Amino acid sequence: MSGSPLLAELIDALRCLPGVGAKSAQRMAFHLLERDRSGAQRLSAKLTEAMQRIGNCTRCRTFSETPLCALCANSGRDRQLLCVVESPVDQLAVEQATGYRGQYFVLLGRLSPIDGVGPRELGLDLLAARLAEGEISELIIATNPTIEGEATAHLLNQIAAQASVRATRLAHGVPLGGELEFIDRGTLAHAFGSRHTL
Amino acid sequence: MSGSPLLAELIDALRCLPGVGAKSAQRMAFHLLERDRSGAQRLSAKLTEAMQRIGNCTRCRTFSETPLCALCANSGRDRQLLCVVESPVDQLAVEQATGYRGQYFVLLGRLSPIDGVGPRELGLDLLAARLAEGEISELIIATNPTIEGEATAHLLNQIAAQASVRATRLAHGVPLGGELEFIDRGTLAHAFGSRHTL
Ligand SMILES: [Zn+2]
Ligand SMILES: [Zn+2]
Repeated sequence: MSGSPLLAELIDALRCLPGVGAKSAQRMAFHLLERDRSGAQRLSAKLTEAMQRIGNCTRCRTFSETPLCALCANSGRDRQLLCVVESPVDQLAVEQATGYRGQYFVLLGRLSPIDGVGPRELGLDLLAARLAEGEISELIIATNPTIEGEATAHLLNQIAAQASVRATRLAHGVPLGGELEFIDRGTLAHAFGSRHTL
Repeated sequence: MSGSPLLAELIDALRCLPGVGAKSAQRMAFHLLERDRSGAQRLSAKLTEAMQRIGNCTRCRTFSETPLCALCANSGRDRQLLCVVESPVDQLAVEQATGYRGQYFVLLGRLSPIDGVGPRELGLDLLAARLAEGEISELIIATNPTIEGEATAHLLNQIAAQASVRATRLAHGVPLGGELEFIDRGTLAHAFGSRHTL
């Protein structure tokens, strides 16, 4: 852009944000320079602070700036229910959409041997130790319904069985408000096969 | 989000970016924390550096980290043509879309008395001094075809007249490839009124 190397570098750096291409990175850079330099300075500070200080909860592995996250530290949550999700985003989705009041375990991934992601990377030793404590009565497996998510669910089910803990899986089927014609074939086939008496 | 105040602050800070709402700010924060901490650190550094070091060219007012921008310093540009635009984005659009090889003057705004934006804020004294140098033979007025942009164009035309410099305005009309039925009425009326012999 008219020869400002630093502006070009800023535009390029903005592209680390998901969903931000060359055009919107440019628009963002111009906007900040023209109209919101203080917002940009604040964003810069928060990015550095967050990347340096946000790690993972030692108990559930979700993002946390303290050794134990607020949810794990909250004595008001049901200590008998443990919901396993792939990522903090999924945890947030469950937390916002359901009335679930138990605890979580965040895998930070899913089984993917080809990418070097095995039981160790998913913290399954930590999970097994947690189940061995004896407090958990139900392990709710909420991994995504992908091939890797299902393989992960299968392994989680085995771990639960070894600890004699009941494992449950989120129901799959036609989404509420979904129209059959627009639903993917796998989901529809699953929903049809899992039909139940009214 | 599960009680990390710093994560909430990062998500909030990301909303200074244009077009980024609560949902995508959240997605961005999670993405950076999970998958691109080095990209986030680089973005943080570039934001601070750009906000601190990028100012405006003393000659054309576009963004520049040096007193004179690269384009103004480029002796290969036609010194007789001066194109006036409202913002560096507009300058970039003209530069990328046309074969224009002259120079620019960037208003960094448009006349808007109600917002306290008058001739001084648009650097029109600097522009008048530039025209008085006697090198410019044509002032190309490329402000936007809005009410404020047209008022600005009117004033620029007067300034050019005072310096005995020919002023021209970008043509308005039906966009190439545009279909009449989808064009706004003002543009269509203008195009109709400005019809010319083939
Ligand atoms: Zn935790
Ligand atoms: Zn310049």
